Amino acid sequence: MTSIGIFGAAGRMGRAIAQAAAEAGIAISGGTDRDGSGELAPGITIGSDPVALAQISDVLIDFSVPAALSAHLDACLAAGKPILIGTTGLESEHHALIDKAAQAIAVLQTGNTSLGVNLLAALVEQAAARLGDDWDIEIVEMHHRHKVDAPSGTALLLGEAAARGRAIALAEHSERGRDGITGARAKGAIGFAALRGGSVAGDHQVIFATEGERIEIGHRAENRVIFARGAVKGAQWLSAQPAGRYDMKAVLGL
Amino acid sequence: MTSIGIFGAAGRMGRAIAQAAAEAGIAISGGTDRDGSGELAPGITIGSDPVALAQISDVLIDFSVPAALSAHLDACLAAGKPILIGTTGLESEHHALIDKAAQAIAVLQTGNTSLGVNLLAALVEQAAARLGDDWDIEIVEMHHRHKVDAPSGTALLLGEAAARGRAIALAEHSERGRDGITGARAKGAIGFAALRGGSVAGDHQVIFATEGERIEIGHRAENRVIFARGAVKGAQWLSAQPAGRYDMKAVLGL
Amino acid sequence: MTSIGIFGAAGRMGRAIAQAAAEAGIAISGGTDRDGSGELAPGITIGSDPVALAQISDVLIDFSVPAALSAHLDACLAAGKPILIGTTGLESEHHALIDKAAQAIAVLQTGNTSLGVNLLAALVEQAAARLGDDWDIEIVEMHHRHKVDAPSGTALLLGEAAARGRAIALAEHSERGRDGITGARAKGAIGFAALRGGSVAGDHQVIFATEGERIEIGHRAENRVIFARGAVKGAQWLSAQPAGRYDMKAVLGL
Amino acid sequence: MTSIGIFGAAGRMGRAIAQAAAEAGIAISGGTDRDGSGELAPGITIGSDPVALAQISDVLIDFSVPAALSAHLDACLAAGKPILIGTTGLESEHHALIDKAAQAIAVLQTGNTSLGVNLLAALVEQAAARLGDDWDIEIVEMHHRHKVDAPSGTALLLGEAAARGRAIALAEHSERGRDGITGARAKGAIGFAALRGGSVAGDHQVIFATEGERIEIGHRAENRVIFARGAVKGAQWLSAQPAGRYDMKAVLGL
Repeated sequence: MTSIGIFGAAGRMGRAIAQAAAEAGIAISGGTDRDGSGELAPGITIGSDPVALAQISDVLIDFSVPAALSAHLDACLAAGKPILIGTTGLESEHHALIDKAAQAIAVLQTGNTSLGVNLLAALVEQAAARLGDDWDIEIVEMHHRHKVDAPSGTALLLGEAAARGRAIALAEHSERGRDGITGARAKGAIGFAALRGGSVAGDHQVIFATEGERIEIGHRAENRVIFARGAVKGAQWLSAQPAGRYDMKAVLGL
Repeated sequence: MTSIGIFGAAGRMGRAIAQAAAEAGIAISGGTDRDGSGELAPGITIGSDPVALAQISDVLIDFSVPAALSAHLDACLAAGKPILIGTTGLESEHHALIDKAAQAIAVLQTGNTSLGVNLLAALVEQAAARLGDDWDIEIVEMHHRHKVDAPSGTALLLGEAAARGRAIALAEHSERGRDGITGARAKGAIGFAALRGGSVAGDHQVIFATEGERIEIGHRAENRVIFARGAVKGAQWLSAQPAGRYDMKAVLGL
Repeated sequence: MTSIGIFGAAGRMGRAIAQAAAEAGIAISGGTDRDGSGELAPGITIGSDPVALAQISDVLIDFSVPAALSAHLDACLAAGKPILIGTTGLESEHHALIDKAAQAIAVLQTGNTSLGVNLLAALVEQAAARLGDDWDIEIVEMHHRHKVDAPSGTALLLGEAAARGRAIALAEHSERGRDGITGARAKGAIGFAALRGGSVAGDHQVIFATEGERIEIGHRAENRVIFARGAVKGAQWLSAQPAGRYDMKAVLGL
Repeated sequence: MTSIGIFGAAGRMGRAIAQAAAEAGIAISGGTDRDGSGELAPGITIGSDPVALAQISDVLIDFSVPAALSAHLDACLAAGKPILIGTTGLESEHHALIDKAAQAIAVLQTGNTSLGVNLLAALVEQAAARLGDDWDIEIVEMHHRHKVDAPSGTALLLGEAAARGRAIALAEHSERGRDGITGARAKGAIGFAALRGGSVAGDHQVIFATEGERIEIGHRAENRVIFARGAVKGAQWLSAQPAGRYDMKAVLGL
């Protein structure tokens, strides 16, 4: 049976993962965090040594910070254990580290661990591929009032899926933050809008609009548990894979 | 260049098709209807002889009534011309006629000629196939106050797509018209709900709901023109096909 | 400072109320339930004597079952304490008991303790009053897969608000569970549709649709905590009121 | 019986108003436009003399351009006839002209002639007044791909209604065009987001979001006819009013 080790265990996602694993009947081997103290669950302490954690775990999950990624990858490489990375805010240097590690171990990196969101992205890519550019694409998301960036990482993930379906580069076709005299919509553009308020865990909608009709493809998260549940499912799947770089689509068999 | 003949030309859809063809720069060869009188467009009269119409057309579109289908298929067979059938309310006897005709000519039969709705159905089928039956499926639609049946033909088309994705028979898994003490939802059921009001041309939404998250896939028709436009596009495509039975998915390349 | 006693304390709502009261810094005096055992919170036991509970509480909240209402009202009458009743499934006999008790104590009875839902009902009543019956009214709700009745009590509460705005009797103008050949929509009807799936805590939408336009007024509950929070707020308000029968609108100052 | 004269008769709204008046059985006395040629309807020519038009009309409707407003008001003042102004893009100088004219004639000026939108604004104002600022307000709208400005005039009208309900100044509390690192949402802010695509006539939604729940109040326009219909209804109502400045709320009796 798989046992999961959690990097960044003291954070909100760390605790949610411990709970989701318990629900799914999967063992937690332990966790680490900056402070290296406290309990993740009754009898499971949070330590500070990634290498030791990797050695006693079958698979690792990382929801910490970009600055800690290098040490976490090294620990997994040393122990020869697979790792699922859900940390956000990664830069190109982190992706280079991941690519290198993936030559020796199985690494799954994703901006969103929800199975629903990843299926959504697959549907969006397909719709964008089938519908010509006389269908305008708009992506709107809503998150709680504390979120500090816009658009959300998941909105960008969906935008990338749409751009891939259209075989265009997202960066060259984004319309973000419309305000004032914007002029008519550019043909082929992918628009983004961000709503903020209350305690919304995360709603996303991709709209394809043409003359006389619209297709709307969306996802609603009721709470953050679904991300933890998806991470646990992904980690289980990953523990049986050979070295290589994966994403959540592979978990869904897409 | 293709020229289109319209069976059921005096109805609302007949006229919309004539207009959509004009917009697309496609010739209308003529039309027939029960009464066999009037004009479809300036200089294009509505007659009563399906055989004569089939002879002067490259492809036929039928938005009339089930009782007229047999005569329309015979006319197309006699003239060796393809036919797109959008007539609703067909029974198994009509489908048998279509299958037989499709041995000699190209026949496209569909419950909905909108390209958007047909793409939606393909997405629904795929989502249903990927998501296990711990994702409940609900289909809700809204149409204008004059609609006399529920659920809509398009809602049923979407339900069939979902059932196909799950490899189940829709008839055995439908929950329709919930009211009163219904008991808990049956696992694997596909629910239907119908809203009626105002002049809504047709909104459909398929909801996949599981613990903590929902995927929503929907379509909004602003007016009936999109159905006429899709029929014209389908007829154009059909005019180049060999004998056989087709549906709108083929037009989309799905 | 107010202290709240909870009838039906062992149920899901009982525990949620204890938590909401704790968050709001309000004391819980205790609880009762059928079994009369267990703890509501550390140090606060669940008993079986409503009279004793009423005597040590400033205000009572009842989320139990209709059959227990009579004993709970008697306990409050004996102790001269106000009571907020959120129990669902009440019949006319229970309303008669409430009316009688309200001559001596303050009683707030409601089908939904969420402040948002009650504001919604006020908006619906006003919209229905302003818009003539060429605006069709439809009410659609979605709840989790375990819900056994349809439409939801809240959907009916919204229907009553719409009927009140139109000065008609809801029972004579309801269209529920549309399925099959229904005929065109009856003028002035209020339609209901129920969706079930996943873990949805409760979404409601009231649609006013006329030729060419729609007004949509809706509410989304992310979880059950909001009902507990509204109940605590209502109980606080109620503890300062004279004898009489109240609803949640009064709490909102509507 | 009322007869309506139309300033700006050659534009899209001018023709829609002529059609809506015909549907409602109301006479059109004539129209004017820049070019002063063409027909508004069979037998009703478009002229270039506002004064002559005002003299033969019972009430005037203006959907032209801000630069023409002064001449149109003068014509109505000279003839002593009421005027409904739906022209958009008015500046403070135009509002000053309107205020002055309203001392002698009845003038109704509005950013949106739809009865539905104006009822919506009234509901939004009331909801904003009842819900404290722990309910965040977001306004999202979608319009067709040709629209050149954002947010829409109607979104701003709804924002003004919300700000009025809260007794704050909209200009000081707007969050528009969120993009990048925005920081957490400011308490009391009113957010705006604009979607563009296809042929959407105009969808607006106002969201009130707090911890655990959301209220959503929205309007969908299927086409532009509703604005023409509302203008005709407003003009009829205005023709019976004394001198003064009015808005659409008065037509609804709000």
